Amino acid sequence: MNLRRNYETRKRQIPRPLEPLNGEREEKVYPPVEEGKLRLIPLGGLGEIGKNMMVIEYGDDILVVDSGIMFPKQEMLGVDFVIPNTKYLEDNKHRIQAIIITHGHEDHIGAIPYILSRIGDPPLYATKLTKGLIETKMKEFNTKRPNISIIKPGDKIKLGPFEVEPFRVNHSIPDGVGFAIHTPLGLLVHSGDFKFDHTPVDKEVTDFGKLAGYAQEGVLVLFSDSTNVEIPGYTMSEKTVGETVDRIFERAKGRVIISSFASLINRVQQSIDSAVKYRRRVMISGRSMENNVETSTRLGYLRIPQGVLVDSKEAKNIRDEELVVICTGSQGEAYSALVRMASGDHREVVIKPGDTIVVSASPIPGNETAISATINNLFRLGADVIYGRQVDIHVSGHAAQEELKTMLDIVKPKYFIPVHGEDRHLILHCRLAQEIGLSPSNTLALENGIVVEFDKEGNYQILKERVPAGYVLIDGLGVGDVGNIVLRDRQAMSRDGIFVIICTVDNKTGKLITSPDLISRGFIYMRAHEELVHKTRAEVRRLMSKYNNTHRADYNEIKMRLRDDIGQYLYRHTQRRPMVIPVIIEV
Amino acid sequence: MNLRRNYETRKRQIPRPLEPLNGEREEKVYPPVEEGKLRLIPLGGLGEIGKNMMVIEYGDDILVVDSGIMFPKQEMLGVDFVIPNTKYLEDNKHRIQAIIITHGHEDHIGAIPYILSRIGDPPLYATKLTKGLIETKMKEFNTKRPNISIIKPGDKIKLGPFEVEPFRVNHSIPDGVGFAIHTPLGLLVHSGDFKFDHTPVDKEVTDFGKLAGYAQEGVLVLFSDSTNVEIPGYTMSEKTVGETVDRIFERAKGRVIISSFASLINRVQQSIDSAVKYRRRVMISGRSMENNVETSTRLGYLRIPQGVLVDSKEAKNIRDEELVVICTGSQGEAYSALVRMASGDHREVVIKPGDTIVVSASPIPGNETAISATINNLFRLGADVIYGRQVDIHVSGHAAQEELKTMLDIVKPKYFIPVHGEDRHLILHCRLAQEIGLSPSNTLALENGIVVEFDKEGNYQILKERVPAGYVLIDGLGVGDVGNIVLRDRQAMSRDGIFVIICTVDNKTGKLITSPDLISRGFIYMRAHEELVHKTRAEVRRLMSKYNNTHRADYNEIKMRLRDDIGQYLYRHTQRRPMVIPVIIEV
Repeated sequence: MNLRRNYETRKRQIPRPLEPLNGEREEKVYPPVEEGKLRLIPLGGLGEIGKNMMVIEYGDDILVVDSGIMFPKQEMLGVDFVIPNTKYLEDNKHRIQAIIITHGHEDHIGAIPYILSRIGDPPLYATKLTKGLIETKMKEFNTKRPNISIIKPGDKIKLGPFEVEPFRVNHSIPDGVGFAIHTPLGLLVHSGDFKFDHTPVDKEVTDFGKLAGYAQEGVLVLFSDSTNVEIPGYTMSEKTVGETVDRIFERAKGRVIISSFASLINRVQQSIDSAVKYRRRVMISGRSMENNVETSTRLGYLRIPQGVLVDSKEAKNIRDEELVVICTGSQGEAYSALVRMASGDHREVVIKPGDTIVVSASPIPGNETAISATINNLFRLGADVIYGRQVDIHVSGHAAQEELKTMLDIVKPKYFIPVHGEDRHLILHCRLAQEIGLSPSNTLALENGIVVEFDKEGNYQILKERVPAGYVLIDGLGVGDVGNIVLRDRQAMSRDGIFVIICTVDNKTGKLITSPDLISRGFIYMRAHEELVHKTRAEVRRLMSKYNNTHRADYNEIKMRLRDDIGQYLYRHTQRRPMVIPVIIEV
Repeated sequence: MNLRRNYETRKRQIPRPLEPLNGEREEKVYPPVEEGKLRLIPLGGLGEIGKNMMVIEYGDDILVVDSGIMFPKQEMLGVDFVIPNTKYLEDNKHRIQAIIITHGHEDHIGAIPYILSRIGDPPLYATKLTKGLIETKMKEFNTKRPNISIIKPGDKIKLGPFEVEPFRVNHSIPDGVGFAIHTPLGLLVHSGDFKFDHTPVDKEVTDFGKLAGYAQEGVLVLFSDSTNVEIPGYTMSEKTVGETVDRIFERAKGRVIISSFASLINRVQQSIDSAVKYRRRVMISGRSMENNVETSTRLGYLRIPQGVLVDSKEAKNIRDEELVVICTGSQGEAYSALVRMASGDHREVVIKPGDTIVVSASPIPGNETAISATINNLFRLGADVIYGRQVDIHVSGHAAQEELKTMLDIVKPKYFIPVHGEDRHLILHCRLAQEIGLSPSNTLALENGIVVEFDKEGNYQILKERVPAGYVLIDGLGVGDVGNIVLRDRQAMSRDGIFVIICTVDNKTGKLITSPDLISRGFIYMRAHEELVHKTRAEVRRLMSKYNNTHRADYNEIKMRLRDDIGQYLYRHTQRRPMVIPVIIEV
């Protein structure tokens, strides 16, 4: 067997982190405040999907757009969430005028509970539904009630040197806006997340008129959503999903179970509309779905006729062909409603032949295998599962190439900064802008932490100094304390486990006084490898007496050598590289 | 902060294993050999993609079709490969007549080196290229040269009570076959991996005539490839890729770098044909690509004109616009050529603006994030990357729905057993067969290890006894010794790390004689949490004196309580659940 090859293949599961983790990019010197200069500093939303956050500075004043969360990447083992590094805002909290929020999705509001008090509790501005969703989220955290002002399209909000006007955009959640931000040096337009849906479920279309108006004023910079820049053509209307759902209801003989993102309020609305049409009652399952339905209904963004909603008790008395369950779990999330149903762990819903299950979402990269496992389980239980690209059960909420070009063409910005995308999305989006006629030097694919500074003449430079940016990992109660060392240890242990060697030595002679204790976890099952354990113990004894002759009592040196030598010994015998942890106890 | 919620979300990354791992399904009693009965026993290829292996038994004689490997699932931390559980074949090795191989892909030949000697070195039968690929693979392993007989379509091979006739099928590797297997109870047809490509690069089309002939004889069971059963319509011809590659060569101003699977010999052929047409020289990079190109060229399956291939030294002297690099790495595999280029670690190829890079493959589920990271890196280096679904740079080698129906319709089997697919694929493929007219009871979506027994009348029953089946994990030198315990430990450590508590006690009094030693890896970085470490040490002291008062010297009991109590203590303070490992040393 070829040793080298196997060892190389083994590491396949843990891709190297693309970006330095929390802490590594902590620049010490910030660029000093400059009077009369406009600065744009992305703190999130670039280089990776999620956790949007854009800092806009004029002189002494700071305006922040969005404050999102992202779900951990595969290699961030055990991490719950990732938020932007807000060190810069923490150090400059007295300068923050406000955070303005485009819409209520996690990747735009999710970090608020974690950062708000650390950056001095600045006022928030959000539309009505977005405010409701932020407040619902904050309730889970036992922090003080945030100060959120309701804004609506057309308002003009004076925030220090900035005047902010929200304008309507259509997206997969109601009440989304983009922002026109007037600054002393020119007008900035931030698209938020948007698409051009001419037949949206909530009747709110992206406001072409406003956008054209901004163009007439002259737009210095356009920030635009890059999520779907790889997709040619136009994104389909949300309405197409409604038609598919209708057809599914028409045919289904038993229960219909629809899983989607809790935040796709319009999708929930369409499912409820179909339920009403086909005389079915609706049960909601999954905490975030229940929360969002409650908030959206209370605020008037979800219309549910009296008597349609039933709780799980009432649902038990309703015949299969008269029931719909709307639930979470479309991403195969552990403990979500659909995943519990699929594994037979759901208290109220037991899947059976005759059930029609609709997975109304496309996979977020990294979730593919979990979703696939869920669908397999549902099939195995005899259900009919409708999923994937073959039927129109999901459309994106983001603009595709032709819509992105339309946005660029209407707004006609002098400069273009793509946001909300990985590196390839940002670069492709810049190329799209160049096709529209912008010169390459006027399209900027940035990295988080870069400072772009504009002067009165509308020229920009990229400053040499960067501000701290990158990931801050949240695990349990700790914000940011999972750094490179902890994560690397988790990665190493996940590959080949650990091997602890405990040597108890006499504090005078340095000689072993008991047999070395060995502990293996995730490396080999010791009972099945008694011979190796036995031999390794003998090797430890041999090494200890050898070191002691040459090194005396420098225990750190001995531990280092023990780690290397036993590590190699174990690799020779197993071709695995457990993390070897030597401990020397003096008594 | 809501405790429960965070804890639940944390586990998201590690999906629960779908199937019991190695060992759990070890049935003790095998069904006894039955004279005059035909048995079909899948040992792999069902319920998950990969590691195909089908056992066909008549009375005392066993015939095996394929012996594949699969790559580890996400939750199989640190595992190199997965092979089928061959316990049944090991226990019955004297009964094995032969292993017959359909084609040279890893998921059909990859397990041979691991299992061959353990199942008594039975003879192998394979076509010429497949034999060459198996031999190349075996050379890496230092095992004895396998006994492989070359077969070709139309041959009739007598193997005990079986007569096997290979028939030509088209797939994404040349020299693929299916098998018609005559048994005393009827004819079995195994499709292998196939598509109906009417304009294949290697000119070898699936043999409709033979298939129709078998139908006339009457087919008892058809086994057919389920990989693409979710895809409507027909799979495109490999030729479409050639046309796209041609267009890319026509436009490229600098180097062209094409990455694909090493086994897609026809794709390599097309890339070389385009290179010749546009007067470029070809450098091959990546070990498996080099091996496969060498084997295929030597055996006449790859035609490369003299002087076209260059090595890395010669390539240095060739101008960019006259060079093509064909390499591995289309799945974002660590250490593959393209991934090394993307991260700047490739010794010979340094990516630069002007390079055109083609990723000619679709992602294997689970590889999406690694591929995405690779593409981002390449963009960041200024290259132009062609990837994804927008251009025809990849077609599948597997039949889509209409082709699968065609196969069923030509062969007209009495019974249908779908192979090579996850549960949902098998169930969907059975439904397709039912659309063609088979009754549901004649379509069998099986699980690995199930024994289907046919009698002389052509009726079947599914035996109560199952044979051992499921995963056998290979990690380093160990085959199958990574089981549930080791894997669960790795999973636990990968989430929240470990916390080792070492208590050195007096062997007479049971009292601590030194301060407890604490070790944390992947849980908290101890230097950053001195207060918690300090408090935890005090808590250990407190607990030890408390236990000692009540429990005396039952150290196992004390360790268990220490694990639970300190585990809870740490959870309260951090909301993380490290694996707590208490050690008590008596001196």
